[in-house]
Amino acid sequence: MLTNLTIALDMMGGDYGPRSSIPAAVNAVNANANLRLILCGNEQVISKELESLDSLSHPRLIIRHCSQVVTNSCEPSSAVRSKKDSSMRVALDLVKSGEAQACVSSGNTGALLFMAHYVLKMLPGVKRPALISAVPTERKNPVYLLDLGANVHCDAQTLYQFGIMGSVVAEQALGCDNPKVSLLNIGSEDIKGHEDIKQAAQLMQQCSYLNYTGYSEGSDIFTGKSDVIVCEGFVGNVALKTCEGIAKLIMFKLTKALRKHFFYKCLAFMLRPVIKKLYKRVNPDQYNGASLVGLRGIVVKSHGNASPKAFYAAIDEAAREVERQLPEKIAAIFEQTHSTKKVATDD
Amino acid sequence: MLTNLTIALDMMGGDYGPRSSIPAAVNAVNANANLRLILCGNEQVISKELESLDSLSHPRLIIRHCSQVVTNSCEPSSAVRSKKDSSMRVALDLVKSGEAQACVSSGNTGALLFMAHYVLKMLPGVKRPALISAVPTERKNPVYLLDLGANVHCDAQTLYQFGIMGSVVAEQALGCDNPKVSLLNIGSEDIKGHEDIKQAAQLMQQCSYLNYTGYSEGSDIFTGKSDVIVCEGFVGNVALKTCEGIAKLIMFKLTKALRKHFFYKCLAFMLRPVIKKLYKRVNPDQYNGASLVGLRGIVVKSHGNASPKAFYAAIDEAAREVERQLPEKIAAIFEQTHSTKKVATDD
Repeated sequence: MLTNLTIALDMMGGDYGPRSSIPAAVNAVNANANLRLILCGNEQVISKELESLDSLSHPRLIIRHCSQVVTNSCEPSSAVRSKKDSSMRVALDLVKSGEAQACVSSGNTGALLFMAHYVLKMLPGVKRPALISAVPTERKNPVYLLDLGANVHCDAQTLYQFGIMGSVVAEQALGCDNPKVSLLNIGSEDIKGHEDIKQAAQLMQQCSYLNYTGYSEGSDIFTGKSDVIVCEGFVGNVALKTCEGIAKLIMFKLTKALRKHFFYKCLAFMLRPVIKKLYKRVNPDQYNGASLVGLRGIVVKSHGNASPKAFYAAIDEAAREVERQLPEKIAAIFEQTHSTKKVATDD
Repeated sequence: MLTNLTIALDMMGGDYGPRSSIPAAVNAVNANANLRLILCGNEQVISKELESLDSLSHPRLIIRHCSQVVTNSCEPSSAVRSKKDSSMRVALDLVKSGEAQACVSSGNTGALLFMAHYVLKMLPGVKRPALISAVPTERKNPVYLLDLGANVHCDAQTLYQFGIMGSVVAEQALGCDNPKVSLLNIGSEDIKGHEDIKQAAQLMQQCSYLNYTGYSEGSDIFTGKSDVIVCEGFVGNVALKTCEGIAKLIMFKLTKALRKHFFYKCLAFMLRPVIKKLYKRVNPDQYNGASLVGLRGIVVKSHGNASPKAFYAAIDEAAREVERQLPEKIAAIFEQTHSTKKVATDD
């Protein structure tokens, strides 16, 4: 475990702002004695919330006042130009300067991506950053799904690079060699899908670093057959949010069905802990941060309506990525693989 | 109810072929005294299966021998050229000639789409056919999701036309005026998504026939806020199959959790009917046919691994669409709306 770990938090993002991020920050420093958090946002609001939790004078919670906030309706490019003193920007600047080793935000995804890209820059050879998250499966290990919305459309080379980055993340997180990587498609046969996917499949097949296992369909995501599934951001975002929606629907229907008769009402009461635990497991978007990979720094994006528990999970994820030195690992593999690949594709 | 209803079935498609389609056909004619089915496929195989169900001489089950089968690996364009005596093609030809009022297949989706397009042709003014299916929601009514994989990419005009077709389907199926139509996107704000979606949103907003209600995210699909949700085929296919996958995962995790202790084992036993019923409801792909809309004829696509029950549901869906005269209704609305729209977009 690292003895000196500093993470910058954008306290003002998401639907709940400091009401969610402050309790999460307090819990995180209490749980990890090596963790220091720099709380970026409106000093007055943060102080008030900290006071209500008796943590205003916590030695490892440092407030960094910011006069601006990036709202959800803010255009990414205008956020970069005109929100230089926003909580999101200041948190990213702290990573850039090295004052913090990672940052966490639950704010406007588009703006965070654009700003992170602008402030931190890409790792050498990486075309685009991607949002990646662990999704539960029927097996013990989760599957890493990317891109979850950082890039609406992706060309073949970008999808191929996402395969490499996903593979590094899975390798580090699962502790396994040669994670199985697949491409999300609308069928498992070679003829299925569009040109970019077919070309990405070829690039992945040719890459000696990757353990490419072919196409996956939406229904394969949760079987655990793959360790990494690659898709463009629009598709990944819809898939992840569809999971969230269907998990809610099933829990809604199950609870409703169980409430219909007195007998089932009693069952429902007894089952409550099982259902609650299950819901947490199958609702990945709510309980895990998604990480922005491919940048020269660690950025974890928490869900827009993240609860304190979800924001806490995102801080935890950022801490683990610092320990794993994820950007450095990605850079090393890219240097090795990408140069080989470039020669191969230039041929 | 129609007194004379003939539906052509492609008996050889899907993972189970006649083992699934024959029991479904026998059940369908037994359940509906007005229904005649033309069973297209290998006569010997069909006869044998019918005999095993004591239905070889059923007066409303007519075998039409076909010497070819369209396999899952068959390229759509080559299927059209070289599979003229396939069960899929013959079933479509029967709709074209008027011998049947609809057809059902669980075969290769790409080939079915390409062949149906080639044989039946588009309705006047419709650019592309779409696959549409009902998906369950938290409310009483389902939501109609399209396109589910007929078109990998769609431009703005195509998405807009899907909105109109989806609206007609929902209007007829739900018996409601002005169904609420939305576009699937990666955020609800106007700035989100790609250019085609933004332009489609404008076209839908300007259309007096449509009750366009804005963007939906993946998590909104099941809330029942919209009656129709429009997206391109790649995204719709992934979303639907993701539903299928997560429904299976949740049932798997729930059953596993319930089996851990003796107490929960007993609960699981008592809960079995509730869980089974729930699974049927939340796994739309398995229990509903998806319809191909926009063509001059009714084509229902059953799931590739359709059980007899699922194939039966698809026959039932085809019968309902014949009663509702769906292609005629779509054509009428298109004539009225599309001509107005064309003038508007030409300005």
